[in-house]
Amino acid sequence: MLSDSRTSAGVDNVTIHSKMRIYEVRGQRMFCLLTSGNLSITQSVISLLERDIQEAKEDPNVDTLLNQTNFLETVHYVGQRLRDVRRMHAEALDRAGISFNSNFILGGQIENQPPEIYQIYPEGNAIHASTESPFLQIGELKYGKPILDRVFTSTTSLAEAAKLGLLSLDATARSNLSVGTPFEMLAYRVDSLEVRHRIKFEANDSYLRMVCDRWQEGLIQLVHDIPELDVLKQ
Amino acid sequence: MLSDSRTSAGVDNVTIHSKMRIYEVRGQRMFCLLTSGNLSITQSVISLLERDIQEAKEDPNVDTLLNQTNFLETVHYVGQRLRDVRRMHAEALDRAGISFNSNFILGGQIENQPPEIYQIYPEGNAIHASTESPFLQIGELKYGKPILDRVFTSTTSLAEAAKLGLLSLDATARSNLSVGTPFEMLAYRVDSLEVRHRIKFEANDSYLRMVCDRWQEGLIQLVHDIPELDVLKQ
Repeated sequence: MLSDSRTSAGVDNVTIHSKMRIYEVRGQRMFCLLTSGNLSITQSVISLLERDIQEAKEDPNVDTLLNQTNFLETVHYVGQRLRDVRRMHAEALDRAGISFNSNFILGGQIENQPPEIYQIYPEGNAIHASTESPFLQIGELKYGKPILDRVFTSTTSLAEAAKLGLLSLDATARSNLSVGTPFEMLAYRVDSLEVRHRIKFEANDSYLRMVCDRWQEGLIQLVHDIPELDVLKQ
Repeated sequence: MLSDSRTSAGVDNVTIHSKMRIYEVRGQRMFCLLTSGNLSITQSVISLLERDIQEAKEDPNVDTLLNQTNFLETVHYVGQRLRDVRRMHAEALDRAGISFNSNFILGGQIENQPPEIYQIYPEGNAIHASTESPFLQIGELKYGKPILDRVFTSTTSLAEAAKLGLLSLDATARSNLSVGTPFEMLAYRVDSLEVRHRIKFEANDSYLRMVCDRWQEGLIQLVHDIPELDVLKQ
């Protein structure tokens, strides 16, 4: 799970907001929620999710992110909260010609159930990753997709996936000003049911810089090593 | 100059149309025009350009792509023809909620003037490439931009540029069904003032396949060779 932290409402109004939230009951369940799109919408949804968690401390009958029986129910619960926010704001946004474009990725694991990753659409419906489509992206996704399409598979190791994620996000940040560091990463090991590796990469982070520099040099060399078209040889 | 050949009006209506036109007066001037966006619009513009060239055979006072005094005037001429088509169709398209999204790239050279590349916007205005921004893209551009951003510079050789173009377009074709082979390439050598290398790459072209296979293998190796994050080492 990897996100950038840049939010823009026009190029003269760029701010830094984390787009990653983690909710866990250590040893029992762990969720990581990534958000994209309109910040006021995503913040409202997060507020509702966290209000429910607070309320459930008094009243265990309140539905929360942390007390559903399985992952799909948890996704439905988040989708329902997204619809609640939509109901509140959609009409006014429509009138202003602003689209309701907030997408979420929810990844994690519940007890001994399999780990899952879902993308939740602005309408509250959802899709999950699979062996054939092993990654999900939201937000400014096109720049960073080719490297994942070419290299990322369902058998890619966690450490390789971390490199690929950073390269994909760095490609996006280079091509689009609205995406930028700090990058936040959660590297979750299946069945650990706890957050061990939550890592924040600032622009000058030595690992991030090394990965990107090696990549840049490697790509130039790689293109150079491919034989030239015969007719274009000097 | 490089283009794909796929035109789609929905996934159930995908056809193959060349998006590259070449106009030359051998030894005097050479232009290559790439098109993107609504096919009926780009075809209309092309028709007007070619009608003018025909008419100028009878009446040399007719403005054409091939008789302007310099490149900028040529770009203005194309922009004017684009506006003519816009005037004809914009109202009907607006009513149907279809945006007038046709973009053009015009590259080439006139006599002993410097070679140039311009992007012409749907409104008929234009920008040109420069030392700092040495490439232009139109259409489905995001997937293929990172590799150009990382590797392509104003000093890249023609043969390297050809490889980079194929890799950029192949990245786009892999990530987006609406982009596909055959790819058409014009590799123009400055001051030649003629078309020597116009090359069509079908999906099974041996050079295209070799470039893409080497790239795929190289990328996997490159990611693999980058050191892992310490905390994720097994």
